[in-house]
Amino acid sequence: MAKQTKLKIIPLGGMGEIGKNITVLEYKDDIVLIDCGMTFPEDEMLGVDIVIPDVTYLIKNKAKIRGLCLTHGHEDHIGAIPYVLKKLNIPIYGTKLTLGLLETKLREHNLGTVDLNVVRHGEQVKLGVFDVEFIRTSHSIPDSSAIAIHTPVGPIIHTGDFKIDFTPITGEIMDFNRLAELGSQGVLALLSDSTNVTRPGYTMSESTVGETFKDLFARAKSRIIVATFASNVHRVQQIINAAEMYGRKVILSGRSMVNMVTVANELGYMNISEGTLIDINDMDKYDGNELVLITTGSQGEPMSALTRIAYSEHRKIELMPDDLVIISATPIPGNENAVSKIVNKIIEKGTEVIYESLAEVHVSGHACQEELKMILALVKPKFFIPAHGETRHLKVHAEMAAAMGTPQENIFILENGQILEFTKETANLGGTVQSGNILVDGLGVGDVGNIVLRDRKHLSEDGLIVVVVTMNKQDGKVISGPDIVSRGFVYVRESEDLMVEARNIVKAALEDCEKKKITDWATLKSAVRDSLRSFLYEKIKRNPMILPIIMEV
Amino acid sequence: MAKQTKLKIIPLGGMGEIGKNITVLEYKDDIVLIDCGMTFPEDEMLGVDIVIPDVTYLIKNKAKIRGLCLTHGHEDHIGAIPYVLKKLNIPIYGTKLTLGLLETKLREHNLGTVDLNVVRHGEQVKLGVFDVEFIRTSHSIPDSSAIAIHTPVGPIIHTGDFKIDFTPITGEIMDFNRLAELGSQGVLALLSDSTNVTRPGYTMSESTVGETFKDLFARAKSRIIVATFASNVHRVQQIINAAEMYGRKVILSGRSMVNMVTVANELGYMNISEGTLIDINDMDKYDGNELVLITTGSQGEPMSALTRIAYSEHRKIELMPDDLVIISATPIPGNENAVSKIVNKIIEKGTEVIYESLAEVHVSGHACQEELKMILALVKPKFFIPAHGETRHLKVHAEMAAAMGTPQENIFILENGQILEFTKETANLGGTVQSGNILVDGLGVGDVGNIVLRDRKHLSEDGLIVVVVTMNKQDGKVISGPDIVSRGFVYVRESEDLMVEARNIVKAALEDCEKKKITDWATLKSAVRDSLRSFLYEKIKRNPMILPIIMEV
Repeated sequence: MAKQTKLKIIPLGGMGEIGKNITVLEYKDDIVLIDCGMTFPEDEMLGVDIVIPDVTYLIKNKAKIRGLCLTHGHEDHIGAIPYVLKKLNIPIYGTKLTLGLLETKLREHNLGTVDLNVVRHGEQVKLGVFDVEFIRTSHSIPDSSAIAIHTPVGPIIHTGDFKIDFTPITGEIMDFNRLAELGSQGVLALLSDSTNVTRPGYTMSESTVGETFKDLFARAKSRIIVATFASNVHRVQQIINAAEMYGRKVILSGRSMVNMVTVANELGYMNISEGTLIDINDMDKYDGNELVLITTGSQGEPMSALTRIAYSEHRKIELMPDDLVIISATPIPGNENAVSKIVNKIIEKGTEVIYESLAEVHVSGHACQEELKMILALVKPKFFIPAHGETRHLKVHAEMAAAMGTPQENIFILENGQILEFTKETANLGGTVQSGNILVDGLGVGDVGNIVLRDRKHLSEDGLIVVVVTMNKQDGKVISGPDIVSRGFVYVRESEDLMVEARNIVKAALEDCEKKKITDWATLKSAVRDSLRSFLYEKIKRNPMILPIIMEV
Repeated sequence: MAKQTKLKIIPLGGMGEIGKNITVLEYKDDIVLIDCGMTFPEDEMLGVDIVIPDVTYLIKNKAKIRGLCLTHGHEDHIGAIPYVLKKLNIPIYGTKLTLGLLETKLREHNLGTVDLNVVRHGEQVKLGVFDVEFIRTSHSIPDSSAIAIHTPVGPIIHTGDFKIDFTPITGEIMDFNRLAELGSQGVLALLSDSTNVTRPGYTMSESTVGETFKDLFARAKSRIIVATFASNVHRVQQIINAAEMYGRKVILSGRSMVNMVTVANELGYMNISEGTLIDINDMDKYDGNELVLITTGSQGEPMSALTRIAYSEHRKIELMPDDLVIISATPIPGNENAVSKIVNKIIEKGTEVIYESLAEVHVSGHACQEELKMILALVKPKFFIPAHGETRHLKVHAEMAAAMGTPQENIFILENGQILEFTKETANLGGTVQSGNILVDGLGVGDVGNIVLRDRKHLSEDGLIVVVVTMNKQDGKVISGPDIVSRGFVYVRESEDLMVEARNIVKAALEDCEKKKITDWATLKSAVRDSLRSFLYEKIKRNPMILPIIMEV
C-alpha cells in the first residue's frame, strides 16, 4: 500500500506562551498559515522591543505556501507580518478591518505591494488543496473570525481569540450555527483559545461596560479622560456613545488611538455623529463638562498619553481636581505595578480615578470556562488541541475536554515546532521543526541573542568598570595607566577612596605579571579582572562587569 | 498663654507605598518609634537589593528616642533595623516571636549587644512620657500586635498589619474588647492598615486553608511539595498537621524556612510531634507517599528552593510525575510572571501543581473592607490616618472613614515626612522632615543614587561601546587605536561590518578634530560620542552608552 499522505499541523508560536501566534497546516505541496503575531519581551530580554517567531521552516518551504489567513487584527496575531514579508512573499486573507489595520502597519514598514484579499464571514477561499472558511466570532476587536480549514482528511477549526457575547455592540453575534453544522458533519480537530481557561463562569458582554460608562458620565463634573486599548473599537464606540448621550465632544489622544479610530471609521466600523470628534487644539473652546478624552496608556506604558498626563508631561492636557479619569482595562500580567503608579500619581493630584478594582469598567475579550465548554460541545471534535496559552492554560483546557468526554489519547498539548500528523482517523506526533524566538531591537532582527542579553543583565545589576592600560610593544612595560572608568557601579565622587584602592589593586596585579614575565594579553587581562573582582566583592559585595583593555604603542 | 506642647506623628515610611513602615511619635523631649521596615526595590532600581527609610530626622534627634516598638516580625516592619542600629542605639520592644526573629537577623549582621525587651500582649511599657500598650491582633505571622500609645494629649492606636480571624490557629483571637474599651474611653487618633482596603467583604480565616490541605493530602499519590512564605508559621503548622494526619514525614527546604521553623519551634509557637521532621538527607529512606516537603519560593524567587526544583537545579530533589506541588501563596504584584513560569516548568515535567487560581490554598493576612470598618466602629477615633498603603489605598480608606461618619477635616492622608500635630482637641499639618529611600546594594548603603541607576538603565537597554585612543602628549596625534569594544550591544561576530564601519566613523571624527587642531579632551570625546551615536541610531535605531577613553603617552 502506498504511504498515506498526512495532514500536518505545526504551531510555530503561541503554544506554551501568550502571543506570537502562528500555526502551519501542511498537506503534500500546500501550506496555509493561520496568523503571524508578535509578543512582548520577557523581563530578562533587556532592551528588546518585540519578539517574533522563527520562520526558518517556512523559508525552507517557501514554494508550498498558498496563503496566510488572519483571525483578527491584534498585534499578537498580525504583528510579525512585516518582518516575515521581508523574507517571504505571501498572499494574505482576512476580514476588512483586519486587513485595514495591517495595511497601516505595512505602510509604516514601507511594505507597499502586498497581496491582500478581503474575505467576508461565511465565505470560503480556495488555497491549494485547502478550502478556508471565515466564521464570525466575538472578541475585543471587531471583525474577528474563527477559521475552518477543509482539508483532504477532514475539517480543522481554529477558534482564534474569542469570547461568547450574546449582546455584542454591532448586534452581529458569533456564528454558532455554522460551528454546530460543522460539528454535526464531523470535525477532525479543534484548536481553541486557552487564554482565560482558568477562569470559571462566563465573560460578561461588552455592552455591560457601556452601562457603567453611562453611570459614571452622568455624575462627572468636568472633563472625563478614559484610557483603553486603541484596538478595542467597540469600547471606544461605547465611550463615544456615552459622550454623545451627555452632549460631550470627544478628543482622541495617542498616536495608535487616532490611527485606529481613523481606520475603523473609514471602513465603516464606527458610528460617530458629525461634530462629535474635535481636535485637541480646540479643547479650550469648551468647558470641562463638554469634553471626553479617549487616550492610550491603559497599561501604564512609559511614553503613552495617560502616563504623560499623570506625570504632568503632556503638552496639551493638565490634570485638574474636577476631572474624572477612567482606566478601562485590566493590567496584563507584569504591568500591575506600572498601572498602580499611574493611579497613585493621578490621586496625588486630587483627581478621581476609576479603575478595575473600583468599578466594572472592563470586560475580557477571551472566553471563560463555560464558554469554552460550549464551543467543545458544538464542534464535538475528534481530536482536541488547546491553543493560545502558557503550559498551565493548555493543561487545564486539556482536562476540560477530557472531562467532557474527549478520549485522553485524542488530546494533544503541543509545543512550538512540534508536528501533529493526521489521517482521517488518526493523529500522531511526528517530530519537530525549527521554531523559537527572534528578538527585535531597533532595526536589528535576530542580532540580540543570549550573550548580548547576559551582558545587558550583568551591566544592569552592578554596572561596569573599564580598566585601560597602554603598553610598550617592545618590552611589554606599562607606559600609561592603568586608568579606571566606571559607570553604573557606584557614585564615584562619594567613593573616591574605593576607586583609588581599585587602581592600586590593578597596578599590583600588573606589576606581579611583569615580575613573572607574563606578556600574553589574555593572561594579563584575567589577572586584572580576577584581582579586581575579588577585591570589590570582598569590599562591597558587588560584581560589576570588568572590562580590561590593553593598548599597544 | 504659653505655647501648648503638641504631639507630633511623623511617618518616615509606609505612606504612599507598601512596605518600609516606620512611624515617629514625638512629644517634647521624647520620641517613640513604631516599626522600622524595609521594602523591595522597584523595577527601575536596577541591581538594588533592598530599600530602607532615610532616618536623618532620627539621627538629629537621637537623644530623644526612648524606644522602638514592633508590631510583628515581617521584613517590612523589622527589616531596616540592622541598618538603623549601626547609627542609633535604641532599646527595642516587641513580643517574643518578633524579637526572636529579629535576633536571628541581628546575628547575621554581627550586631550582638542590642537592648531587646520582650513585652506580652496586654502589657504596658513606659517610654518617656508615653505608655505603650501591646494589643493582640491576627496576621500571617504569630504574635502580631496593634500598639496603643497613651500620650499626654490622648491615646493613639496603630493597628500594624492585621486581619480579623475568629478561628485562628492558636485559638487566641484579636483583643477586640481592649480596642472597644479604648474606643469607649475616647481615642484621639487611629492609624489603620490599608493594604487590602480595595477588597470588599472579609478575608477568610487561616483555618480554611487547613481544610484544603487535608483534601489535597487525602488524594496525593506520592510526595507533596508545598511552597509558602517561611514567616507564615500558622500555614507551616497547618501543613505539618495535615502531614501528621496522613502519616507523612516533613522535610524543610530553603534557608529561611529552616530558620523560621527553628526559631518558632524553640520559642513554643509550633506544635510538631517528635519524629515528624526529618533531614533532607534521609529522604531516600521513605516512600513518596510518606513525605511532605515544605519549601520557600512561593513568589518565584530566582534562587529559592522551589525555583531550583522546577528547573531541575536542586541538588537533593528531582521532581517526579506522581509528585503534587502546592503553591500556598498569592503572587505579590510584580511577581505574577515569575510564579507563572515556575508553574509552567512544573507542568512540563508532567507534575501536577495546585496554585491559587485552581484551589483555595491561600488566604491574605490583611483585613478587607468589612474588617476595616469593624475596627473603625470599635475604636471610634476622633482623627483618622489611613496607613500602610499606596496613595490609592489610603484614599479609599479615607473615604470609608468618611462614609462611616468621621468628619472629612478629621481625616489625614499623609505623605512620608509630613508632620501631623495634635492637641487634645485638634490635629493640623505642621511642615515636613527629611524622608525618602536609601538604596542598599551589596554592602553599600546609599551609594547607589539616580546617576548610577540611570547608567544601569541605559546599559541594560542597548549595552555599551568603549572607544579607546592613545595619543601623543606632545603633538596630540593618535598613535594607537581607535579600538572599539562593545558589550550588550550586538552579537559582534555576526555584525563585523557594522563594527568596522563604526571604527571608521570614529577615525573620521578624530581626523576632523586633528584638521581643526582640536586637542581639548572634552571636545574630542564629544566629537567621538556624537558621530558614533548618530551613525548607530541611523543604522540600527539603538542608542548604546558610548564611553570614549583617551590615553596619553
